Amino acid sequence: MGTKIETLSRQAAHGGLIGTYRHASAATGTDMTFGLFAPAAALDGQHGPVPVLTWLAGLTCTHETFMIKAGALKRASELGLMLVAPDTSPRGEGVPDDPDGGWDFGLGAGFYLDATQAPWAEHYKMESYITVDLQQAVFDNFAGNPAAQGIFGHSMGGHGALTLGLRHPDLYKSISAFAPVCAPLQGPWGQKAFSNYLGEDQSHWAEHDASRIMARVPEAALRPTILVDQGLADEYLERELHPERLEAAAEESGYPLQLRRHEGYDHGYYFIQSFIDDHLAHHAAILRD
Amino acid sequence: MGTKIETLSRQAAHGGLIGTYRHASAATGTDMTFGLFAPAAALDGQHGPVPVLTWLAGLTCTHETFMIKAGALKRASELGLMLVAPDTSPRGEGVPDDPDGGWDFGLGAGFYLDATQAPWAEHYKMESYITVDLQQAVFDNFAGNPAAQGIFGHSMGGHGALTLGLRHPDLYKSISAFAPVCAPLQGPWGQKAFSNYLGEDQSHWAEHDASRIMARVPEAALRPTILVDQGLADEYLERELHPERLEAAAEESGYPLQLRRHEGYDHGYYFIQSFIDDHLAHHAAILRD
Repeated sequence: MGTKIETLSRQAAHGGLIGTYRHASAATGTDMTFGLFAPAAALDGQHGPVPVLTWLAGLTCTHETFMIKAGALKRASELGLMLVAPDTSPRGEGVPDDPDGGWDFGLGAGFYLDATQAPWAEHYKMESYITVDLQQAVFDNFAGNPAAQGIFGHSMGGHGALTLGLRHPDLYKSISAFAPVCAPLQGPWGQKAFSNYLGEDQSHWAEHDASRIMARVPEAALRPTILVDQGLADEYLERELHPERLEAAAEESGYPLQLRRHEGYDHGYYFIQSFIDDHLAHHAAILRD
Repeated sequence: MGTKIETLSRQAAHGGLIGTYRHASAATGTDMTFGLFAPAAALDGQHGPVPVLTWLAGLTCTHETFMIKAGALKRASELGLMLVAPDTSPRGEGVPDDPDGGWDFGLGAGFYLDATQAPWAEHYKMESYITVDLQQAVFDNFAGNPAAQGIFGHSMGGHGALTLGLRHPDLYKSISAFAPVCAPLQGPWGQKAFSNYLGEDQSHWAEHDASRIMARVPEAALRPTILVDQGLADEYLERELHPERLEAAAEESGYPLQLRRHEGYDHGYYFIQSFIDDHLAHHAAILRD
């Protein structure tokens, strides 16, 4: 029914099914690929629909990275959570890439926003893709509960989880992030991406800066605690991530934020693996409330 | 002390340390790289030395594959196990590769034996590397217990775990495997590798065929149960793996073997992730005895 998806691969995993699927996105004007883990409870026709967590990955990652590297499926299976992992940008014929060949912009670096500037605006519509087209593809084809959704992510995808979570509170009830880009206006990655995707008028940038958004959330809209983990041996911490700005923003608006700092952990998936079970439990507790 | 190793990377993971190390191997005549996870108990100077499990990976894999994809570190940390993941072949200048460009022979496909035929015999000495040089590199530099060692692996590395485990019972007290090549004499991968590495005289081949070895283990040498998991949706099952021959061999000699078959699981790391905790518990129970 509804959105048609093509199954690229599907196999048993942790008592459920891990699959890779492709569908046409109106937002990006391209085919998009995502990974989806369906726990046993979503497959037996009796226990579903189950809560759904969308993971937004970081720079250079694809729909595959989280599923195979994060070690999340075991606990997701135990908690009965569906996991959805979209790609990090549109891809394919006609999709422009960084003319300088950088890995921090263009392909693999969509920053989860809708570009407004040529040549990016034609395909780089990642916010609409994630919040509209991907939603339809998932809920038209799997036994997920659209009223019990969380969003989480890593680095650029942590920025995506915070901004999309805060911008779409009706869609996502729970939010968490690993080593997120908390204040993209302050770092080279965010400045390069925003100036290209959104243009030089910085008044538009703040709408996609998690710290700026969080600082002005009205009291009535304060929602369940956001969980953020940050490694202190993270090579990007000083230059790109700025968690202290998210902390200040939370203090300003009164937004409940649990920011944990971890000695010795870096920016990679071993860090994510080490704390992923805490994030799954965080979302499950909120979504089952 | 002893073998010098160079630290290529090291970071916190699951309360312990995951590292990548390089050292010179006399056996292969090359530098070799391995991954090693040290649980907290091996780092505090009080609880070690800890049991050590060596993982042998499959075709095309490297020292990295298991550590990042198998989801093993969490339970290994809880059980206080050290994990060691060597590379799947020698590499570097002067190391010959499959002249036909195949992925099932040569680089990434050392089959964990000592080649006797030119041009392979000069560098492809993986059995000596794993059982001598790697041992020294690990125990000279980390708080592992050489008297509490297990070996396990996947596919070609399952063949390696079974054959090295059975051929070196003084070294490895516990053995397990995922989708192992149980009878390499019967399949194209094994036939190609053995004819090149060991020559056309098939009398030498049987010494590196797990089913042939297991069938003739004398009663006095029968040891703790070997655990083997096999997915029934495995695309290589019929042609390359032959678990039924291992079962027949176990019956012939009386070797205790627990072979579990799993509906719907394929040959990949999602399959391994799904059952890795059982394997870690299997080894821990034997090694702590």
